[in-house]
Formats: sequence, structure tokens, C-alpha cells
Amino acid sequence: MSRWEPDARGRLSVAAMELYVDRGFEQTTVADIAERAGLTERTFFRHFADKREVLFSGQEHLQELFVSAVAQAPQDASPLAAVTAALHAAGTVFEARRPWSQERQRVINANPGLQERDLSKMATLKSAVAVALKERGVGEPAASLTAEACISVFHVAFQRWIDTDNTRAFSEIVAEVVEALKTVTAA
Amino acid sequence: MSRWEPDARGRLSVAAMELYVDRGFEQTTVADIAERAGLTERTFFRHFADKREVLFSGQEHLQELFVSAVAQAPQDASPLAAVTAALHAAGTVFEARRPWSQERQRVINANPGLQERDLSKMATLKSAVAVALKERGVGEPAASLTAEACISVFHVAFQRWIDTDNTRAFSEIVAEVVEALKTVTAA
Repeated sequence: MSRWEPDARGRLSVAAMELYVDRGFEQTTVADIAERAGLTERTFFRHFADKREVLFSGQEHLQELFVSAVAQAPQDASPLAAVTAALHAAGTVFEARRPWSQERQRVINANPGLQERDLSKMATLKSAVAVALKERGVGEPAASLTAEACISVFHVAFQRWIDTDNTRAFSEIVAEVVEALKTVTAA
Repeated sequence: MSRWEPDARGRLSVAAMELYVDRGFEQTTVADIAERAGLTERTFFRHFADKREVLFSGQEHLQELFVSAVAQAPQDASPLAAVTAALHAAGTVFEARRPWSQERQRVINANPGLQERDLSKMATLKSAVAVALKERGVGEPAASLTAEACISVFHVAFQRWIDTDNTRAFSEIVAEVVEALKTVTAA
């Protein structure tokens, strides 16, 4: 058997999610995941630190995407416009992954430890967005509040987007939620 | 020794915080806390489920306070005005507890597990505020977004209030942060 495994990471992700959905997260071992993917545990640990990271490694990519979108927004864009651009950039990545996102959310909702991890990752993302805004010259408390608003819109839009009845694109929902936030805070 | 212990809860809280600050949260046992307070472990467990709850039991009170303030806001108050009233109500409780809040935050900042617990409690508080807004007839996504804004303002204002250099009241900071949020989202 060749040591190079085509798309090992993708196969491990798919196998893990199938097992988390079928058996539950707690009842799944790394050995189960590797076996289902036709790979070794050693290969699993070359790609993921532990079985939680299969669910959360995407958030590092999301954070890079947010930070670079905020940095690259036009110089005259308001802080809110800069984070809105980041949310739309996230949409282009998300759109193809909706079934994965839905299953992932179901697994997280069933496990309080994973929920705490998810909250912790979102708090880290929020801090990174605030730092990116400060690097654009946004002062305080505007930078922190805009980062809070960014994560708020993300959270509300994401829940609507993964809803089984939803047929709209993430970006379309983001635009609507940003407008709703403006209305709520202008009242 | 009488089974009734005057202000056992308060004595346990003070003893616990002193130990968490001096030795660290992990290094403190319930036996240490009870001994320092001159009480038994059994008494500790009559007041707190575990040593984490010394830090977090106040958040249930905070949640009741938020929910009732939102419910009691004037019928014609906007959703944002209703949560702003709740934040000011929190101020009246907080003001006397600033040294406790500062020490509590220091203990939480030093322990990732406590940080996750804190985030989880804040997420619960946010959901409770959203429900209270819906009970006032606020629709979606306005109810969720206003609850998000409430926790955002709370978070930013709280950090400023516990800052060692701060000399202003929580309510005064809340008013300023609400105005900053309006400015940021109006841009």
C-alpha cells in the first residue's frame, strides 16, 4: 500500500461525520473513523489532532478568510461594511457545504462539550475580527462592537441558512440580517 | 455547633475567591474552601453544586433580572430600549460588586475550562433575552438580533467597567456603548 493516500483528509472527514450522525460523537473512536475510511489511525493523526478537530478545523480557514476580507475592504469602507464584505466572502465558501454544515450542527447540538468548543472558537474568531478592524485604524469601542455585530449577524444568518426549509443563499440571508440589525439598532 | 450557619453562602464565596486568587482554581478543593470558611464540605454542597458554581451561580440571578426588566419595559419601548433598560437594571446590582467581578474575571481568564463555561452561560442568557423579547411580540430576526446586541453591549461595557483604570459606573458605560453601537450600525 502506498503511503500517499489520495484525499485522505476528505475521506476521514466524510467517514467521521457518517459515524457521528449514526452512532453519536461520544460513541465514535478514531479507530472507527480510520477503519471506515480505509486508512490507519496514524494517518488520521497526521490530519487531525483529535476527533473534535474534524468538526472544528474548518474554523481556522474561516478565520483567515474573515481577517483577510476585513483587511482588503476598500479604505473608505465603514467598519460595518468591512465585516459585511467578510460575511459575503464566507458565503462563497459555505454555499457548497450546506449538507455538511447541517450535519455538523446536528452533531454539535447533541453534545454540550462540543457546544462549548464551538462558542470558544466563535469567541476567538470575534477577537481576530476586532484586531483586523483595529489594524484598519478603527478605534474602541467601535472595533469590538463591530466584531460583536459581525459574529451576531453570522450566528443569526447561519441558523437561518442551515434550516431544512431554507432555499436561499447564505449571502442573501446575510444581506437581509445586516439590514434587520440596522433597523433594530436605529429604533 | 448549631446547624444554622449565619451567611454560610457568603463566607463560602469569599473563602473560595481568596483561594482561587491565591492558589489558582485548579489547585483549590472544596475541602480547602470549607475549612477556610470554618464550615463543613456538606454545608458547601448545600449551597453550591461544585466549586465552579461559586463563580457562576450569580448568572442565574442576572438572567432573572434581565428577563424581568425586558418584560416590564413600557409597552411602547423599542426592543433595543427594553434590553437597554435591562442593562441598566444590571448596573444597580453590579456596582457594589466591582472588586468581586474583577477577581472573578481574573480567575476565569486563567482557566480555559472556566472561559468555556462563561461563554456557555452567556449564550443561555442571550437565548433567555430573545425569548423575553418574543413574549413582548418582537418578531424574528429582530428578537434574536436585539438579544445579540444586548449581550454584545454587556460584554464590551463589562470589560471597560472592570478595567483597573476605570472610575465610572456600569450604567454610564452602558449608555455610552449603546450609543457607540448605534453609530457603528448606522454607518
